[in-house]
Amino acid sequence: MQFHHHGYVSGDPRVQDAAGTGIDRPAELPDEMDVLIVGSGPAGMLLAAQMSQFPGVTTRIVERRDGRLVLGQADGIQPRSVETFQAFGFAEAIIAEAYNIAYMNFWGPDPENPRNIVRTARTEDYAFKISEFPHLIVNQARVLDYFADAAAKGPGRIVPDYGIEFVGLTVHPGGDHPVEVRLRHVAGPRAGEERTVRAKYVVGSDGARSGVREAIGRKHVGQFAAHAWGVMDVLVNTDFPDWRTKCAINSTAGNILHIPREGGYLSRMYIDLGEVAADDDHRVRRTPIEEIIRRANEILHPYAIDVKQVAWHSVYEVGHRVTDKFDDVDVDQGHAPRVFLTGDACHTHSAKAGQGMNVSMQDGFNLGWKLGHVLTGLSPASLLETYSAERQPVAQQLIDFDREWSTLMARKPEEISDPQELANYYLGTAEFPSGFMTQYGPSMIVTDASHQGLAEGFPLGKRFKSVEVVRVCDGNPVHLGHHAKADGRWRIYAFADAQPAGEASALSEWATFMASPGSPVARFTPEAADADAVFDVKVIYQQAHEDVDVTRVPELFLPKTGPLGLTDWEKVYAAAPSAWTTADIFAERGLSRDGVVVVVRPDQYVAGIFPLTATDELTSFLEGAFLSQREPAVVPG
Amino acid sequence: MQFHHHGYVSGDPRVQDAAGTGIDRPAELPDEMDVLIVGSGPAGMLLAAQMSQFPGVTTRIVERRDGRLVLGQADGIQPRSVETFQAFGFAEAIIAEAYNIAYMNFWGPDPENPRNIVRTARTEDYAFKISEFPHLIVNQARVLDYFADAAAKGPGRIVPDYGIEFVGLTVHPGGDHPVEVRLRHVAGPRAGEERTVRAKYVVGSDGARSGVREAIGRKHVGQFAAHAWGVMDVLVNTDFPDWRTKCAINSTAGNILHIPREGGYLSRMYIDLGEVAADDDHRVRRTPIEEIIRRANEILHPYAIDVKQVAWHSVYEVGHRVTDKFDDVDVDQGHAPRVFLTGDACHTHSAKAGQGMNVSMQDGFNLGWKLGHVLTGLSPASLLETYSAERQPVAQQLIDFDREWSTLMARKPEEISDPQELANYYLGTAEFPSGFMTQYGPSMIVTDASHQGLAEGFPLGKRFKSVEVVRVCDGNPVHLGHHAKADGRWRIYAFADAQPAGEASALSEWATFMASPGSPVARFTPEAADADAVFDVKVIYQQAHEDVDVTRVPELFLPKTGPLGLTDWEKVYAAAPSAWTTADIFAERGLSRDGVVVVVRPDQYVAGIFPLTATDELTSFLEGAFLSQREPAVVPG
Repeated sequence: MQFHHHGYVSGDPRVQDAAGTGIDRPAELPDEMDVLIVGSGPAGMLLAAQMSQFPGVTTRIVERRDGRLVLGQADGIQPRSVETFQAFGFAEAIIAEAYNIAYMNFWGPDPENPRNIVRTARTEDYAFKISEFPHLIVNQARVLDYFADAAAKGPGRIVPDYGIEFVGLTVHPGGDHPVEVRLRHVAGPRAGEERTVRAKYVVGSDGARSGVREAIGRKHVGQFAAHAWGVMDVLVNTDFPDWRTKCAINSTAGNILHIPREGGYLSRMYIDLGEVAADDDHRVRRTPIEEIIRRANEILHPYAIDVKQVAWHSVYEVGHRVTDKFDDVDVDQGHAPRVFLTGDACHTHSAKAGQGMNVSMQDGFNLGWKLGHVLTGLSPASLLETYSAERQPVAQQLIDFDREWSTLMARKPEEISDPQELANYYLGTAEFPSGFMTQYGPSMIVTDASHQGLAEGFPLGKRFKSVEVVRVCDGNPVHLGHHAKADGRWRIYAFADAQPAGEASALSEWATFMASPGSPVARFTPEAADADAVFDVKVIYQQAHEDVDVTRVPELFLPKTGPLGLTDWEKVYAAAPSAWTTADIFAERGLSRDGVVVVVRPDQYVAGIFPLTATDELTSFLEGAFLSQREPAVVPG
Repeated sequence: MQFHHHGYVSGDPRVQDAAGTGIDRPAELPDEMDVLIVGSGPAGMLLAAQMSQFPGVTTRIVERRDGRLVLGQADGIQPRSVETFQAFGFAEAIIAEAYNIAYMNFWGPDPENPRNIVRTARTEDYAFKISEFPHLIVNQARVLDYFADAAAKGPGRIVPDYGIEFVGLTVHPGGDHPVEVRLRHVAGPRAGEERTVRAKYVVGSDGARSGVREAIGRKHVGQFAAHAWGVMDVLVNTDFPDWRTKCAINSTAGNILHIPREGGYLSRMYIDLGEVAADDDHRVRRTPIEEIIRRANEILHPYAIDVKQVAWHSVYEVGHRVTDKFDDVDVDQGHAPRVFLTGDACHTHSAKAGQGMNVSMQDGFNLGWKLGHVLTGLSPASLLETYSAERQPVAQQLIDFDREWSTLMARKPEEISDPQELANYYLGTAEFPSGFMTQYGPSMIVTDASHQGLAEGFPLGKRFKSVEVVRVCDGNPVHLGHHAKADGRWRIYAFADAQPAGEASALSEWATFMASPGSPVARFTPEAADADAVFDVKVIYQQAHEDVDVTRVPELFLPKTGPLGLTDWEKVYAAAPSAWTTADIFAERGLSRDGVVVVVRPDQYVAGIFPLTATDELTSFLEGAFLSQREPAVVPG
């Protein structure tokens, strides 16, 4: 964590200095704003936290509820989400309070007495083998609390405007704030009052029954499956030995997905309520909690739960639907989108693969920096077209995965030939439910794969997978990727050739170019800004840290920034194993020993791979995503 | 982290339910209280956080300052202190913002050009080899913030009463609240007003010039050394390559102890200002900052610092003094103490070994639970006599270590024959500055060593050194010691013999005894309280976790507690290595395979070691430290 950069701070370093629109931010929703987020779920709140890092942009987030979420809803957290929490600064805090999944156990009918269930398999959770981050269970309410905290402590000081619901919107063809939005106060002293505001961009993070989706005429495509599930968060006493272990239970009486929750006592159960008749008309949703508990006990036989408290419960029918496009502009309309959909507003599915909240958050992470870049004049408005292009296929994959997983989960015992099959499917697909399968195709912000061979372990379009390196200035082992905070900046990692620091080398020539006035760093960084305000350029030497003479490292990697012009010591790393780490990032990620440049987007996805000598190619790639800052900045109307 | 135990909680689980005196706690200092802490430094604030776990006790803490500490003072954090932070619930948060010491480098005169300094040694910091916790540098102000947070979120809801200074006290021979304390408001609307309050116990955590020490007539013994040091927290640019590494710099121009600080930019320098003349009369303390910086540059030659901001600076003369006894009662006076001294109030020394804040916090940790136990009637008042008996020798050791270390640090180059000597001393003594050398002798709360051979790796009287085990209920690898929170409870670890759970064994016989009405758990736990309210009894089986059938574990280890009578699943552990950990606590701590009982105090020190069969001996030991709860509780007047 870096701070004291603008001078000594005495208090909590997580509270950044307010800046721009965060200074004296009005408590009341203004009439005009740059970005209006509708809905404070996982996608909306992550987006708010991200936009708080762009205090030059006025962002507001409206929420129908009159305050924070209190209960229920999603709780499964992929390693990719924990990685994202790390970037927003609260991974260690949320891990400390979460349930950590170590195993998933499987139960099925006892062959000798099929009325009883027996444990058929224990599988180690995939997370530890696939990431340095764990696979967690924690209440969505707490995830939202942490993002709200990050949004409020960021320079933009963003806090939700509670008690305001979305009524409708109109996108006007021109003007500075072309989106007219009709809202209604539904809580507080102004309850009942309607008002109209204008925004440059609107983001619909307003859930499965999204009003924003309806307003832009997008349709949810897919089917509403005829299978119902009851879900309950309960405090119980029980003789079921796996009460604190995640389990899939498949019994002659039905199925349970059992998810222990944070805190050591609570668990969530998803209980199969069976096929829903075609003429049911959602009557199944009125299933009483007593009936859900009765079913659970039937399935758990010979074990039983004695429910002491029901914290939350609900009944839902599984739907698998995805919106065909996640913005308001059809392809080739010749102008950039103004309205976006995220999260459940554009993809709905069952809860049982534990994916929904995670995919929603990545929607927000994908969109946030793009809005920030366009609205601060760094990038052209066409950047916003990549949002739907990148995220819609991910949602489609999710729907496909979830349909397969829920079908497997809802099978009857007689349909199962191999009791290990579900366990095998779960482990075999680990990369998907971990959140690491997403791969964006070539675009203005992802190069083609022509140089992939220089960095095999950093697949283009996939998220940058961190490895431990040694920080030269203090010899600490640190995860290279963990220094990439969700601050809206791009990262350029220069993996050096074999020469030591200070010697003539491909790296030093690259550094000389990058420090020159013609470099993309110079051209695309506003003149008044710090040298690393847009591109955070780091170097990783192949040597051990004690063999890197920091006084001979090119100044590009030791920029003097901030009001005091202080040297930033934390951009120079060493790859060779040291006393405190055995990792060598060159070996672990298959990096060329002739050096390689890896460019990573603000949302942590690998954007480009270049030889150290290919400075023209690097420049040309970045020219596609950035606007020159040498002329006055172009801010889209 | 365990929560939801009293029913579902939606918000931050670190906020415990208010209880007892924490419900409607008056903002104004009352006229009578159980415990009055004078001073909100590290000892006082830890003590407040600890007392917040005893909401049956009225505790107040007064502080002369009008608010939180803002600047300066101590910053070195031993692994033992981080271990303590873990027990108070904020280790992961403070580690994330602290500077982590990986190396200590040593610099001396260049033999070829003695005007210049050169690096003479790099030494790996000891912390990683000695503990699972790191060695940190973080501002005392932040440490106090975290303890203040813990105190405020604990059931006792303790917050400091700022702007009140100590004037004097009188210990009356009798009465319910025998200590009469005179205080003065020095800030706020009542500034200037004096008042008198009464307390059962008073703790002087009021620093080197302690008024409480003076009031009870204790004297600081030792000498005021004639050597002065300047200290500054500065933001600089520099060509000194080790600006971000801890260094001892020994040059012909003098000495510097260089300590990088949290946040990546700030560092602290202790600069040798040389011998102080006998007739100096503290004039050295008026040395201007410009002179300190000039000295620093002279010592650093050929390197230089360009100071951009001075966050804090001070000049002090090294004193090494310790108070002869840390309470108000001389030996054999036949009654228990009423007034205690902690921290700088009873031991002062140089800052350069980075020990002061750490030893002070352990003073508070040692005293807190004892006050809590006596005031809630669990233990006899004689328990309080062990505070001075245990902590005064620790302070004396500290003074001796610090005198040796500062003398070594202050040597002139010509006095140094071996440039490695300082580095060797630093590493050779690692256990002391890590905070793990403290060992309390036999007393009413530490047994003699007759059964030490059953658990060689848990030395009696030293702090319980944690090892990873596997939690049976969910298969998670967890540090056994990290479940021991600073909640004022004793821990009894039953390391099982080789029989599996549910089979007849020494363990199961021990469990049967411990669950019987004659057991110390039953006799010393108030009847209305949960079964684990005083003793948290855990079991560790030798088997792998999947071979422990939790349904066959004795109920002693699965108590049903709280208003809902919920099963606590987190007291049953397995020692054999699993998929996620290679540790085996029996092997790592030399535990008898016939089983052994290890009793640990609320401050994490090993109190007793017993064979599973020695239930009489265990009972007899605990009888010395506890009062029977079968009669009405005896609360000392």
